[in-house]
Amino acid sequence: WIAKPTEKVMATGSHDRMKKAFVAEMKAENIKKFLYNFTRLPHLAGTDENLHLAQQIQTQWEIFGLDLVQLTHYDVLLSYPDKANPNYISIIDERGNEIFNTSLFEPPPPGYETVRNVVPPYSAFSAQGLPEGELVYVNYGRTEDFFKLEREMGINCTGKIVIVRYGKIFRGNKVKNAELAGAKGVILYSDPADYCTPGVDPYPKGWNLPGGGAQRGNVLNLNGAGDPLTPGYPAKEYTYRYDEASGVGLPKIPVHPIGYHDADELLRKVRMHIYSNNKVTRIYNVIGTIKGAMESDRYVILGGHRDSWVFGGIDPQSGAAVVHEIVRSFGKLKKEGWRPRRTVIFASWDAEEFGLLGSTEWAEENAKILQARGVAYINADSSVEGNYTLRIDCTPLMYGLVYKLTKEIPSPDEGFEGKSLYESWYEKNPSTEYKDLPRINKLGSGNDFEVFFQRLGIASGRARYSRNWKVEKYSSYPVYHSIYETYEIVEKFYDPTFKNHLTIAQVRGGLVFELADSVVLPFDCRDYAAALSNYAHIIYNLSQSHQSEVSKYSVTFDPLFSAVKNFTEAAIDFHRRLQQVDISNPIDVRSLNDQLMLLERAFIDPLGLPGRPFYRHIIFAPSSHNKYAGESFPGIYDAMFDIKSKADQHKAWEEVKRQISIAAFTVQAAAGTLKRVA
Amino acid sequence: WIAKPTEKVMATGSHDRMKKAFVAEMKAENIKKFLYNFTRLPHLAGTDENLHLAQQIQTQWEIFGLDLVQLTHYDVLLSYPDKANPNYISIIDERGNEIFNTSLFEPPPPGYETVRNVVPPYSAFSAQGLPEGELVYVNYGRTEDFFKLEREMGINCTGKIVIVRYGKIFRGNKVKNAELAGAKGVILYSDPADYCTPGVDPYPKGWNLPGGGAQRGNVLNLNGAGDPLTPGYPAKEYTYRYDEASGVGLPKIPVHPIGYHDADELLRKVRMHIYSNNKVTRIYNVIGTIKGAMESDRYVILGGHRDSWVFGGIDPQSGAAVVHEIVRSFGKLKKEGWRPRRTVIFASWDAEEFGLLGSTEWAEENAKILQARGVAYINADSSVEGNYTLRIDCTPLMYGLVYKLTKEIPSPDEGFEGKSLYESWYEKNPSTEYKDLPRINKLGSGNDFEVFFQRLGIASGRARYSRNWKVEKYSSYPVYHSIYETYEIVEKFYDPTFKNHLTIAQVRGGLVFELADSVVLPFDCRDYAAALSNYAHIIYNLSQSHQSEVSKYSVTFDPLFSAVKNFTEAAIDFHRRLQQVDISNPIDVRSLNDQLMLLERAFIDPLGLPGRPFYRHIIFAPSSHNKYAGESFPGIYDAMFDIKSKADQHKAWEEVKRQISIAAFTVQAAAGTLKRVA
Repeated sequence: WIAKPTEKVMATGSHDRMKKAFVAEMKAENIKKFLYNFTRLPHLAGTDENLHLAQQIQTQWEIFGLDLVQLTHYDVLLSYPDKANPNYISIIDERGNEIFNTSLFEPPPPGYETVRNVVPPYSAFSAQGLPEGELVYVNYGRTEDFFKLEREMGINCTGKIVIVRYGKIFRGNKVKNAELAGAKGVILYSDPADYCTPGVDPYPKGWNLPGGGAQRGNVLNLNGAGDPLTPGYPAKEYTYRYDEASGVGLPKIPVHPIGYHDADELLRKVRMHIYSNNKVTRIYNVIGTIKGAMESDRYVILGGHRDSWVFGGIDPQSGAAVVHEIVRSFGKLKKEGWRPRRTVIFASWDAEEFGLLGSTEWAEENAKILQARGVAYINADSSVEGNYTLRIDCTPLMYGLVYKLTKEIPSPDEGFEGKSLYESWYEKNPSTEYKDLPRINKLGSGNDFEVFFQRLGIASGRARYSRNWKVEKYSSYPVYHSIYETYEIVEKFYDPTFKNHLTIAQVRGGLVFELADSVVLPFDCRDYAAALSNYAHIIYNLSQSHQSEVSKYSVTFDPLFSAVKNFTEAAIDFHRRLQQVDISNPIDVRSLNDQLMLLERAFIDPLGLPGRPFYRHIIFAPSSHNKYAGESFPGIYDAMFDIKSKADQHKAWEEVKRQISIAAFTVQAAAGTLKRVA
Repeated sequence: WIAKPTEKVMATGSHDRMKKAFVAEMKAENIKKFLYNFTRLPHLAGTDENLHLAQQIQTQWEIFGLDLVQLTHYDVLLSYPDKANPNYISIIDERGNEIFNTSLFEPPPPGYETVRNVVPPYSAFSAQGLPEGELVYVNYGRTEDFFKLEREMGINCTGKIVIVRYGKIFRGNKVKNAELAGAKGVILYSDPADYCTPGVDPYPKGWNLPGGGAQRGNVLNLNGAGDPLTPGYPAKEYTYRYDEASGVGLPKIPVHPIGYHDADELLRKVRMHIYSNNKVTRIYNVIGTIKGAMESDRYVILGGHRDSWVFGGIDPQSGAAVVHEIVRSFGKLKKEGWRPRRTVIFASWDAEEFGLLGSTEWAEENAKILQARGVAYINADSSVEGNYTLRIDCTPLMYGLVYKLTKEIPSPDEGFEGKSLYESWYEKNPSTEYKDLPRINKLGSGNDFEVFFQRLGIASGRARYSRNWKVEKYSSYPVYHSIYETYEIVEKFYDPTFKNHLTIAQVRGGLVFELADSVVLPFDCRDYAAALSNYAHIIYNLSQSHQSEVSKYSVTFDPLFSAVKNFTEAAIDFHRRLQQVDISNPIDVRSLNDQLMLLERAFIDPLGLPGRPFYRHIIFAPSSHNKYAGESFPGIYDAMFDIKSKADQHKAWEEVKRQISIAAFTVQAAAGTLKRVA
């Protein structure tokens, strides 16, 4: 721990002393052991093995000392290959004879040859079918890729099978775009350009994806709905289920993923053979609790998923092992008689890989309680997706906390001995928007924080060790969702000493500790104000590429800028009052903390974003244009993006105006929540 | 005040002493003076006169001693007759000559002959037009009336002008039903059978409706949307406005109201002349605040409207005068150094008559704050609609409080000298559902509590002096919304000594006082449990008239009954814990109070009722089948009601099952909010 002298002086005894003890308790060696233990078998959602792991974690968290650890189950729609009828793709000749078939499984990595129940690569929730037809290459399958094909190259995808390379956008969006373009089948493949770093060997010699490896994954378009058959409600015994035809986000055409060796073979005419089945299946979350000493009705949640496509060496177990060590350390302190001020909830989610189902169903079941009592959600999927520097995605409310905390944590990086994590992070990835600060990203989706942040408006954040994005441009780490995600790839290549894992434990655990135990919540509304101002200028600048229409349709951003100004003033005034609060008056502290807790909630519009009822955050939404980012002012952004494709320009611009108005109102209302309460 | 010895012993000094002082301060004579003052001129929403009254009230509330009194304005769609082109209806002969015209105004009552700016009877938001055609009498214009006409009598309304008598359902629903039946115009009239009590003279000799009087009123179908052009958002300067074609709830055909003298004349063929205009108009609420001493971020709201169709002798000024006296009494106590524990907000709403617009826009603007901090809303429209006994509509959470309070208030009724209000109320209107208790009604709509209760889930209640419903079966008091609603009709017939007004001031004021100043919120969740159980049995029994379908489609109410049972157990356990709370621990008290405050919120489904996004309470909704009642389990009820009209019975019953599931989930989740917080 690196603490400046002034911070030491300001330390409030118990809190800082216990934080030190909490951090000192966590060990890299433990995380390593947990990772090893969690990755011996596949833990596919809905399987016995994953239920057994849930039960093991439940038992261990109880032993660690949590007050209560429960399994919560839901019966959700999952999708599995048919063991008797494997999925594959054939090349067919002019007579329809199959002259080549893609592989039915990935060659197992050394040591895992005899492991049973490895699910072969497949696209979960693919439709069944045996379409055959001409193959069209559609690049990444983005909107702009199909535009280019159709408008510039005159290539029509109707009735074709399209082959799409993974990357840039979420695979579910690729499939949706292909469906809209009229395709009757989709082949997803991992291109070496995206999934192999030059000069690096394929696994097991290096950490690149072997040619026989393929990326599993679901191809849904849930937009935050959770279980496709019970949108908006938890998938419990009493819940009404739609039939699959009315389900949310299910693709209507067959989809299958292949590796680059098979992709190289594919010729003009192919036949897909897809026999996967959708099946309502029981899943299990593990929910552990330490009751807060003073405000047991205020919750700080640390959650990450447990289910994996195969061994989950990185995704998710490098995260789950860190959560395990954080729970152990909290439990240790609790056994010694300490409790955090607020309640801490630890969650091991199931079926994240099938559409964030475990977390979403739990949040649906507990929505009222979470909206009333949820202080913050910290996400804990993969701890390492690279070994270069820290990566943080979080609400602007947490910027200050993240910066403060990372200044207290030693950097694990070579060449930064004696320096803080903040220093190495800043040097390796400085912000382009804020001078003299490390980069923090917007929250998008693709992980279990989604329902908490995008639907419920609970302040959220996530932390990982990541790669150098400026140099390594591939779309995720190469072996992502393949059989080669093993314990060994982490132990050999990603983090041999587990020092980066420990750093992530310190960051995630430190965030939880500060959020749960600080008297005044460590949120800064002024940083939200600065972010809003930044986003308002960005969206305004985007509009300026349509200057004549902006003028013709009287589009004005003035109300939005005015609202941001009001918000900024309210935030400054709020923190002025917060400085003066009488800490010995519990109701006054609670009242201000409630304003802080509920600020993120103020950005939720109950009516949701257009056509996306479960994405309700007006400032942030998952981007359908970029897998790796959230969008800011998504309502306005989408309305402006849609202008290109709309025949009725007047109507399209009216929608832009409507969205600006909603954003202005929301920011204005959020400012209102920060004002004096009476 | 009637207090039992034990209650005196239990009195917590200050609270009970101040309550006594608060009640003693209120005088019938003051209410009378305020009513006189408020009824000198018409105060139609959007007029200068109504702005002036807002300013007067603002000034007086400031003088009374409130901390802050502000005008809040909104620019909403209103509707007025065209002064140059009056609306009327003609009888036309076979050649199209107009041989009779309905009257253009009501004969003014004595003393008001020279008052200017009396708006003639009209149906606000009627479409413009001059339809002519055959006249069809459609009774009350209910769904069953049109069914009967079309199915049993073979009368088709397409292309006809329908004449409908007022009563039974909201006039907007009559117009919607007529539109759906294909009518091209609607004439509304007051039938003596509904608006004249036998043996009573028309005003001014008695309180019956004169033959030249007619009932004004809006004919919207807003379903809680507020301003038709800005549904879901406050109608502020920055708000995007839909065009009228996309507005919510606007009728597409001309509508006009007439009295029974004109109705008697109408013959087979008529022509309507409707020139009313819709116009975006500024309206003003008056919002006054007394800041709470301990929990200034908890709000108890007393609100009632100020705008009237003409003089508003009963509606709304008999209510506004009572609010004025309550404000004066609170202000008096405050000037002496006292403050309630929580913040009290007093509201004088504008444009209630045009669709609850003032209250709804204000609640839309402040939704986040109200959801987070709103403890209760007490509605204050007309204090007297009769002089027989008390009428209460409220959330089950308030049953106990209402019973306790009415036992402390002396009965104003003849023959009940020395007895409590509770006793006369119970004797005159006992509950049929709960033995040994007076009747309390469900909250429906038609008044300003709607947005607070049905959209936001804030515990709400209303109190009036009412007629004997068993004897007087007319649909509202006879002169309702006519020019004959004067100060004098109240002073001569309804409440000459203003003792009933004072009683209502004691009830409304007493509710506000107890809600704002009790350490533990005076809500009882066990009464909600009993109500839920009652409603579940009622809806189950309704289903039993379709026993074969219930069996065929496997409809089961078991999950609902099970959820109600869980809720009941949680409520009992909650109140057991509440008994044991350490009153000296402010956080523990606050935490339990938060559970009480948020219980009503737990019944809100963010997805809303089917097709009614702004009615979101799963237990209660305004009934479209009965103007004077709320519906319980409206989702299930509507789905069962719709079965008759659905061709696809399988689908119709699936919807019933879905609605039972949503109700079961909601009750179950509400039970969850009452459990131990960690």
